[in-house]
Amino acid sequence: MFEFTAPFRETSGSPIRELFKYLGEPGMISLAGGYPSSDLFDVERLQQSAAAAWREPARCLQYAPTDGLPELKHEVMRLMQQRGVDVAADQLMLTTGSQQGLDLLLRVLINPGDGVLVEQPAYPATLQALRKQQARIVTVPVDADGLDVERLTAMLESGECGKPKLLYTVPTFANPTGATLSRERRVALIELAVKYGFLIVEDDPYGDLRFTGEHVPAVRALAGQIDGGVERVVYFGSLSKIVAPGLRVGWTVAHPDIVRRCVIAKQTADLCSAPYTQAIAADYLAQGFLAVHLPRIIAAYRRKCDLLCDELDAQLAGRLQFQRPHGGMFVWVRVEGVDSSELLTHAIAQKVLFVPGRAFYADQADASSLRLSFAGPGIEEIGEAASRLARACKLATL
Amino acid sequence: MFEFTAPFRETSGSPIRELFKYLGEPGMISLAGGYPSSDLFDVERLQQSAAAAWREPARCLQYAPTDGLPELKHEVMRLMQQRGVDVAADQLMLTTGSQQGLDLLLRVLINPGDGVLVEQPAYPATLQALRKQQARIVTVPVDADGLDVERLTAMLESGECGKPKLLYTVPTFANPTGATLSRERRVALIELAVKYGFLIVEDDPYGDLRFTGEHVPAVRALAGQIDGGVERVVYFGSLSKIVAPGLRVGWTVAHPDIVRRCVIAKQTADLCSAPYTQAIAADYLAQGFLAVHLPRIIAAYRRKCDLLCDELDAQLAGRLQFQRPHGGMFVWVRVEGVDSSELLTHAIAQKVLFVPGRAFYADQADASSLRLSFAGPGIEEIGEAASRLARACKLATL
Repeated sequence: MFEFTAPFRETSGSPIRELFKYLGEPGMISLAGGYPSSDLFDVERLQQSAAAAWREPARCLQYAPTDGLPELKHEVMRLMQQRGVDVAADQLMLTTGSQQGLDLLLRVLINPGDGVLVEQPAYPATLQALRKQQARIVTVPVDADGLDVERLTAMLESGECGKPKLLYTVPTFANPTGATLSRERRVALIELAVKYGFLIVEDDPYGDLRFTGEHVPAVRALAGQIDGGVERVVYFGSLSKIVAPGLRVGWTVAHPDIVRRCVIAKQTADLCSAPYTQAIAADYLAQGFLAVHLPRIIAAYRRKCDLLCDELDAQLAGRLQFQRPHGGMFVWVRVEGVDSSELLTHAIAQKVLFVPGRAFYADQADASSLRLSFAGPGIEEIGEAASRLARACKLATL
Repeated sequence: MFEFTAPFRETSGSPIRELFKYLGEPGMISLAGGYPSSDLFDVERLQQSAAAAWREPARCLQYAPTDGLPELKHEVMRLMQQRGVDVAADQLMLTTGSQQGLDLLLRVLINPGDGVLVEQPAYPATLQALRKQQARIVTVPVDADGLDVERLTAMLESGECGKPKLLYTVPTFANPTGATLSRERRVALIELAVKYGFLIVEDDPYGDLRFTGEHVPAVRALAGQIDGGVERVVYFGSLSKIVAPGLRVGWTVAHPDIVRRCVIAKQTADLCSAPYTQAIAADYLAQGFLAVHLPRIIAAYRRKCDLLCDELDAQLAGRLQFQRPHGGMFVWVRVEGVDSSELLTHAIAQKVLFVPGRAFYADQADASSLRLSFAGPGIEEIGEAASRLARACKLATL
């Protein structure tokens, strides 16, 4: 009855959101979500910041500037400085989560058929956004050190990937693999971007969540050391994983020419993000609460991660392969000889959820892979989740 | 250095937002904004609802369903019932303001070059959204009774406007004209939509703000009486003008096939709107606060409107023409023989702002027109604003 645009003729949405329908089932333990643990929200301090923000109710209730509340921009600039990046006001805009940052960027840059390089496996909502923008997705493999930059170099040299406009990566504690791009590869990647004239989209929601190992500077930070590097990087930050997703506070750092256009795109996309939650976030950061809160959630996620990995080793040794992540929220697992979508059916019956690997591939999916998140479940649930997974594995390989 | 998509090669944004830079000037009185008066926000009750929402902090801080918090959907369904429209859950989605509702709708429906009918003059952000989606804009004139449906009929019959996909209108207290589409024209419009197979986009942020005259049912309400009418109407509602824009609560009522696709588009656009402000809005509506608040703001806007019109009559009689609006936020004015963009230069020097009419036209702008908003300024500023406008007019016609 209605004639929809090509990307919306089909009604396939996020494969992860599809799993949400099982979340409500009694007794279900979810290792599927990409969201932080509700138990770890800094409720008291956020309440304090909410009260502080409300001291100027009109600021919380009126329209806000499209590029974000100035006081929150100020705090994000300070935060970026701690991440080794000096940001000017015209290089920064705030968005309704960093998901919106990607959406706006694609709208101002990507025409149907434009080539976009994406690490593979990759965050499904990115793949979905690229498909909806009708980009030509070109995948680049990853290994234990993140994006395979050597392979990328060969692809660019041979011209097999055409002239890509941008490359999307989560270089630190990637979703879904948990891998971190080495410093050497970051530098090589920036040099490639300068040489071949594409933009690196550095999505960095997890970078602060390091449990172990040495800090690796953001691509955007390293870009300052390479001629022409800075303007080749678009950086997405977010408070969703380190404070709370419900604030819907993300940000884009990019060349002013790009930011200006993204702001114009945002004028028609939603005019402005909710000023009250922006004001809460601004106060929370200004009070230094994040610095107090971060060690607490890092310790908690680390405990959960260790426990999950220990339990997988203990209960599923030999059945699956994975690397212990150094941070973030995810363990990427391969179950040799098993299709993880079939495994999921058994897992749901055993009341445990995960995301089948297929969701993270644009092509040539590794069907035996799957993503486990240790962030969402309570620590007391993790052993049980591993047991259920073990039972599901047994049933799947019968 | 960067190759932007066609709609973003130019950096022209909202002409209204352009005026924002003058807002901070000391002593400036603005009749330019389309925003409600900050003085009229129901701060105490909203504070009460904020406290109530916070009783479940995890709900406020975690990701929310993409189509909106169920409790707010429930309240919006009740509100729509009061507006004469029965809405099922799958016909409704919540958005980050109704601006996002339009953006998502255009993304799922409008291909570059698709014909879209727009009343003229029209809300500039709608024109901007249509341009960014590369729609082929076809304007339909309005008169004192809103959209000229007779003219539209002729346009459709003659085929001069091609086969339009949708028609955008603010049928009640239009932005910028303040006009309300008569009941007869609404019925005729729905019949045209059914006959010619286009969608009516009914944008209704001001409908509750009636000062005088008889209530006219929403187009979506009347559509229920016409065979095939209901699925031809997409309705946008919003709390921005009746509660507070900062909540960023808007909603879309449409056929489930349309809503489903808009929800998928929202997954990549911003995943979800801020749940805290949704929860505040849900409590505010559930407590019946809106019903208490509405008469108060209607009375206040009515007083401001009357005063502005009286002052225009007293201080600018003969120099300008306008119709007293029956509700909403705007007075649409023509100043014979004056270009309102030039008038604005004088007005800014006199410390009063308005929006030149040009901003509301996609073609054949009436340069002598301008929009005055009586909602934003304090009542004590309105007489002075009219005096300054009178001085500016004098200077412009010297």
